[in-house]
Amino acid sequence: MTEKSLITVVGAGLVGSLYAIYMAKRGYKVEVFERRNDMRKATISAGRSINLALSDRGFKGLMGVGIDDEIRKIGIPMHGRIMHDVAGNLTFQQYGNDGQSIYSVSRGDLNCKLMDLAEKEGVKIHFEHKCTGVNLDEASANFQFGNEKISVKGDLLVGTDGAYSEVRDAMQKTPWFNYSQYYIDYAYKELSIPPNEDGSHRLEVNALHIWPRKDFMLIALPNIDGSFTCTLFFPKSGALSFDSLDTIEKAETFFGEHFSDALAMMPHFREEYKTNPAAGMVIVKCFPWTWKSSAMLIGDAAHAIVPFYGQGMNCGFEDCSIFSELHDAQHEDWDLLLRNYEKSRKENADAIAELALRNFIEMRDRVAEPSFLLQKKIEAKFSKAYPQFWTPLYSMVTFSHIPYNDALVAGDKQERIMQSIMKKPNIEEIWDSQEVENEILANFI
Amino acid sequence: MTEKSLITVVGAGLVGSLYAIYMAKRGYKVEVFERRNDMRKATISAGRSINLALSDRGFKGLMGVGIDDEIRKIGIPMHGRIMHDVAGNLTFQQYGNDGQSIYSVSRGDLNCKLMDLAEKEGVKIHFEHKCTGVNLDEASANFQFGNEKISVKGDLLVGTDGAYSEVRDAMQKTPWFNYSQYYIDYAYKELSIPPNEDGSHRLEVNALHIWPRKDFMLIALPNIDGSFTCTLFFPKSGALSFDSLDTIEKAETFFGEHFSDALAMMPHFREEYKTNPAAGMVIVKCFPWTWKSSAMLIGDAAHAIVPFYGQGMNCGFEDCSIFSELHDAQHEDWDLLLRNYEKSRKENADAIAELALRNFIEMRDRVAEPSFLLQKKIEAKFSKAYPQFWTPLYSMVTFSHIPYNDALVAGDKQERIMQSIMKKPNIEEIWDSQEVENEILANFI
Repeated sequence: MTEKSLITVVGAGLVGSLYAIYMAKRGYKVEVFERRNDMRKATISAGRSINLALSDRGFKGLMGVGIDDEIRKIGIPMHGRIMHDVAGNLTFQQYGNDGQSIYSVSRGDLNCKLMDLAEKEGVKIHFEHKCTGVNLDEASANFQFGNEKISVKGDLLVGTDGAYSEVRDAMQKTPWFNYSQYYIDYAYKELSIPPNEDGSHRLEVNALHIWPRKDFMLIALPNIDGSFTCTLFFPKSGALSFDSLDTIEKAETFFGEHFSDALAMMPHFREEYKTNPAAGMVIVKCFPWTWKSSAMLIGDAAHAIVPFYGQGMNCGFEDCSIFSELHDAQHEDWDLLLRNYEKSRKENADAIAELALRNFIEMRDRVAEPSFLLQKKIEAKFSKAYPQFWTPLYSMVTFSHIPYNDALVAGDKQERIMQSIMKKPNIEEIWDSQEVENEILANFI
Repeated sequence: MTEKSLITVVGAGLVGSLYAIYMAKRGYKVEVFERRNDMRKATISAGRSINLALSDRGFKGLMGVGIDDEIRKIGIPMHGRIMHDVAGNLTFQQYGNDGQSIYSVSRGDLNCKLMDLAEKEGVKIHFEHKCTGVNLDEASANFQFGNEKISVKGDLLVGTDGAYSEVRDAMQKTPWFNYSQYYIDYAYKELSIPPNEDGSHRLEVNALHIWPRKDFMLIALPNIDGSFTCTLFFPKSGALSFDSLDTIEKAETFFGEHFSDALAMMPHFREEYKTNPAAGMVIVKCFPWTWKSSAMLIGDAAHAIVPFYGQGMNCGFEDCSIFSELHDAQHEDWDLLLRNYEKSRKENADAIAELALRNFIEMRDRVAEPSFLLQKKIEAKFSKAYPQFWTPLYSMVTFSHIPYNDALVAGDKQERIMQSIMKKPNIEEIWDSQEVENEILANFI
């Protein structure tokens, strides 16, 4: 029930900046403390993926602060996936309906724009302030700024400090706090395909490119400068892994065998492979996400997921827009607001964590199977005929605002139906038939 | 491959003290740092369960340092469970074969004896040293001792600092460290049944008493002073919970309804219920348990479990004896020793974590069902006739050294067999028949 005056936000990343704008627009005094220096005055630090796929949930979050159109303009629409097989043959699979796309955007550009807007709304961002500890009851935090130690006490402490959150660290030490961090046994490494000499893209620009190789994959997302950022997702250790490719020669041979068309477009392969880290991917789950009415977590700090559905940022932005809707409804009853926020978001965060893990198998393995592509063709046809009964799972996640958990449940039902359809011995011939359509329909009427 | 000279152990609890003895006996210099004061010079602090059930795995750990017989003498053998129904009727269920018992021992007495022995072996125990951080690579740790800050650098840093381990905290911040802490939604509160005026026990002494009430339970373990320590395991929140019993009157009424025979023996009920905390129970899992060849976790620091199988301490003591066996085999190859230690123990720690959770349901619910008791009677009969095919799960866990994971797998097979046996419509009449025996036997020949 306390009234809030000063909101202290730890972390000026994508979600922290957006959350700060939301709160400043409501009239709160908001101060943001960021560990790094101001990326608007420096080159972006390496190691994190430099482009992201923004989809409808993310745009809705941006719409709440009026910058969705602006961001759409600087993004590159991707209408579908293009699969590259070992021989270099291409297969296209559309993501949604005509006109629906996900957008490749630069993490740096987006973050800079959000920080600009936050400052325009009166938010003060303090850079090079490393959080060294917090007091949850007092909504206060300590920061190291150069040699200075600074203590800040606000009315609400907001952890938007990502998967390795300091604010969450303090919560972890409190009784009844459930927490898990789990590293999948894959790592990723970024590489690049530079533009043609005339500045154009070397691959079809309006698509997400995938080289699915069953146990591993390479993907490429377009950048506005004509380049593509490629990411290799590969086992960390084992017979064929980052550990086993322990010389640049072995790595190059490996790429030549599995990704020869991509390698031919990577003039800086050797340098990049050597320099860029093989980074881990962690899934973080916890509960509660709030402490009394004095602290809360939002974005990756509350729910870090693997990147395979392109939903990490989108989910964090949706946290912001849902929080804002609840804020409208509950006004200044902070106790109720924080309880309802974590209650409404937790199951959906768990659902997208699960969906993201599953999508790794789809992307690296299933998209290369003709039977999977046929299944998707049957689903698309049925969905077009009976949109009231069937929205494809990918579309529910990417092009809708259906709660993630509802999408997961509906997707599981779809998969059960399709497994039985795909078992028909002559499905390749009859996939387009009335019989198949009726059999699917029988599950809904 | 490094040779070790100084072993630094963080935590002088049961496992820390036992581990220190093992290492001192091998000729290492061992220093132990304990947060609390010396319990041999003070009364034991409240809040942790004051008695524990020591069984065969624990005794084997103690045997390795030659004190199993001594400890057995100060423990109270419990041959089985006595169930108390609401009307006060008693049912006895033997734990193992004749002569097999688990032992109720005082945590404080056992810990004091282990510390005495550790010091006798040359171990130096530093009390009131609170660990404030560690450096894993350097096998060093910082301690707060009064106003002093002390830094200790050894050759191996050993975290025996329990479920809330500081050493593990440092590992959690390293890449690829998987970790989870999960609080079950129950809490526990300790109460007591004092001795009769003549010093004798008010209940059968050689048994573990259970008041199974489906969603909650009370248990009682005998102490050598004639008293029983009772523990109420009860939902933390909800319609009938510690939260809902928010006055001492409500708590007393509740006990009168559900545990009237116990309440009649609890003259200090009101005072104890009010004073003693309702404490949480956390399950901790992590991996790896080691850092290079410079640090390791053992006992609850690596794997905290719920108390319902009475195996927490036993598992920690088994860690010590297994570590010692591997040590014999690998001598001073510390890299190999630490890798083999965590590899051999992890799946077994996970298995007992699972078994302990399941045993809560057995203790609070199933033991009150006649069909469960009949099932156990059939199993006992078959096990006696065919010991080569069937050791009851409880006996595998409690009276054997079969790896916990093997016990879990074998137990699951037993349960599948028995579920089909118990479905026979006339099982109450034919449970003793050749037909039933043959049907069970068919699964093994």
